[in-house]
Amino acid sequence: MIEVYAFSTPNSVRVPVALEEMGIAYELKPVNVRKGEQKEASFLSLNANGKVPVLVDPDGPDGDRFVLTESTAILIYLAEKSGKLLPAKGSTRARVFEQLSFQISGIGPAFGQLGYFLKQAPEPVPAAVARFSAEAQRVMKVFDGVLARSEFAAGDEFTIADVSHFGWLWRRQFADIELQAFPNVRRWYDAVAARPAVEKAVARVSALVPAA
Amino acid sequence: MIEVYAFSTPNSVRVPVALEEMGIAYELKPVNVRKGEQKEASFLSLNANGKVPVLVDPDGPDGDRFVLTESTAILIYLAEKSGKLLPAKGSTRARVFEQLSFQISGIGPAFGQLGYFLKQAPEPVPAAVARFSAEAQRVMKVFDGVLARSEFAAGDEFTIADVSHFGWLWRRQFADIELQAFPNVRRWYDAVAARPAVEKAVARVSALVPAA
Repeated sequence: MIEVYAFSTPNSVRVPVALEEMGIAYELKPVNVRKGEQKEASFLSLNANGKVPVLVDPDGPDGDRFVLTESTAILIYLAEKSGKLLPAKGSTRARVFEQLSFQISGIGPAFGQLGYFLKQAPEPVPAAVARFSAEAQRVMKVFDGVLARSEFAAGDEFTIADVSHFGWLWRRQFADIELQAFPNVRRWYDAVAARPAVEKAVARVSALVPAA
Repeated sequence: MIEVYAFSTPNSVRVPVALEEMGIAYELKPVNVRKGEQKEASFLSLNANGKVPVLVDPDGPDGDRFVLTESTAILIYLAEKSGKLLPAKGSTRARVFEQLSFQISGIGPAFGQLGYFLKQAPEPVPAAVARFSAEAQRVMKVFDGVLARSEFAAGDEFTIADVSHFGWLWRRQFADIELQAFPNVRRWYDAVAARPAVEKAVARVSALVPAA
């Protein structure tokens, strides 16, 4: 069975969401990033970059065990393996890759850095908070414009681009991001979050966090 | 003919490099980001995110004019259009997407933020410089490990993953990154930079900068 090393994080949740949407069985392997387990030697042997999620597929593309890192690469891999959530051709296919890129090079880093400087930095760094807050609002406005023109991120179909965007929007409180000013994102988020497969994946990932 | 809106930037250079490697003719349309032209209305109508590069293909996937943003999405689009620089299947294909993701969510943001706080921020922000400097060194060590195991970023072949990584490594001086501590990156960089197609693309992109 496919194994997913994960925690209740923006990047991790993408993989269970995709697997639930695709109807592929998987086992979650918890990696408690709050305790720094992603930087321990046993995990670094799976991903030298020290980040969740990691996918381990016993039936990989070359016929043997295959370890893959980077949630975006995992989404594309699973979409091509299953034939789901990524159009085989046409302009929508390119739009999926465009939105995957916009998420992980734009929205993700803005939210991640803003959350760090708001919540985790050992000292206040107002210039960094101002920079990443402005950038987070800017990219949210861009994303709201995308969703003003189409139901889902890459067009009229739910694709792995929506799965990718969902991760950080689900965890937007880390960066104190609210959706009032972004009505199209609000509409899209509520629709995605209510999908049965998404609800199930979120429940499974949330259960990885030990009770306090 | 394909048009590429670009400037002499890490993200822009990827597209001409890919086009030269694929043997596809193109016209460069300069967008002087030092003058803020990427935030002007005429450019925002092409890319609401206000960033270069943008590809305009008169013969798009749906048979009409197609405008595509995000350098990574453009690389994938061109690879699938040409059948070059991206294996059609097998584990190497997944490794290409893994390295594309690692570049644009890891190395790119680290170099970009470090360069900003070192060179462009209106006031010194030592905590931000320290954070992004440490992250830049960390991801460079990870990348050096990747290149210790294979000739190119995703295996034994030159792919769009190498094209993507080249952009920021070519512009590493913006972030004051040196390669002495990363011998495998040094070996890889020198090999990539010496490819005739890469030299030609770099020359064409560099020529977009007006003489001072």
